[in-house]
Amino acid sequence: MASLRIREAKEGDCGDILRLIRELAEYEKLSDQVKISEEALRADGFGQNPFYHCLVAEILPAPGELQGPCMVGYGVYYFIYSTWKGRSIYLEDIYVMPEYRGQGIGSKIIKKVAEVALDKACSQLRLAVLDWNKRAIDLYKALQAQDLTEAEGWHFFCFEGEVMKELAGR
Amino acid sequence: MASLRIREAKEGDCGDILRLIRELAEYEKLSDQVKISEEALRADGFGQNPFYHCLVAEILPAPGELQGPCMVGYGVYYFIYSTWKGRSIYLEDIYVMPEYRGQGIGSKIIKKVAEVALDKACSQLRLAVLDWNKRAIDLYKALQAQDLTEAEGWHFFCFEGEVMKELAGR
Repeated sequence: MASLRIREAKEGDCGDILRLIRELAEYEKLSDQVKISEEALRADGFGQNPFYHCLVAEILPAPGELQGPCMVGYGVYYFIYSTWKGRSIYLEDIYVMPEYRGQGIGSKIIKKVAEVALDKACSQLRLAVLDWNKRAIDLYKALQAQDLTEAEGWHFFCFEGEVMKELAGR
Repeated sequence: MASLRIREAKEGDCGDILRLIRELAEYEKLSDQVKISEEALRADGFGQNPFYHCLVAEILPAPGELQGPCMVGYGVYYFIYSTWKGRSIYLEDIYVMPEYRGQGIGSKIIKKVAEVALDKACSQLRLAVLDWNKRAIDLYKALQAQDLTEAEGWHFFCFEGEVMKELAGR
């Protein structure tokens, strides 16, 4: 039988990761916002001071099967800082291909990120989710995450490229 | 006349920064969440690979005045990563003491962070704000930030310490 493996991404995975990044953005109905290239993912995640870390979930072929492992999900995280609670971790993306959902792969990725968080003395794991993404929200709530937008009223704001240039007077 | 200076924080500023962190949390009606110590702020912000960066705003005394500079505001930021747009910056905290508001100090801090963002090839500047904090929201909107919770429906979720331990099976 095929089995699941969750492992740290390697530089050579960036093509597959970009495929899944695009699938996630499509699922979130925001595909037009994906501007990243495979080259940027390689440079930014696999240098000396990586900007992000990535876990990939792959299905390993059963013994005797001819095809290689197939990447079916990923999680991208990085370290952030809370001035209230210190070192923290942020799960920027988490995605499992539709045909592999309902098998606990998403939970396994989150659990792995929680392990990393504890190993690095982080006090919280933050993430963001779209309000209509009931499936993801149900999962996070089942795992006991708190919706801080609901509970405390936090809103996300963003200054994008051109606006940022104007701000900086350039 | 007294004048304003915005500069990078030094390790010796951590006592003053913690005073302002506590004032901000009090203003946000969430003071009970502040668990950080001055020692942690020193260790995490001023080592070889700092977890955060900090700008401070201070009022310089007029020539002939006897007191030293007075720290009246701060901004804490760090580098994050968007899998859609690449390197980005996150403004975790921004605060100006009530008696010094309305003089553009907050805007100056944000502009400085936007400059850093451009210098470091970041494509966006993100932040979070409480929905009742009209004064801050008005400022961010005046500076052309987009409210992504309103526009796209993003909600903040958080797994806190004990929940994270359970997740990691520890």
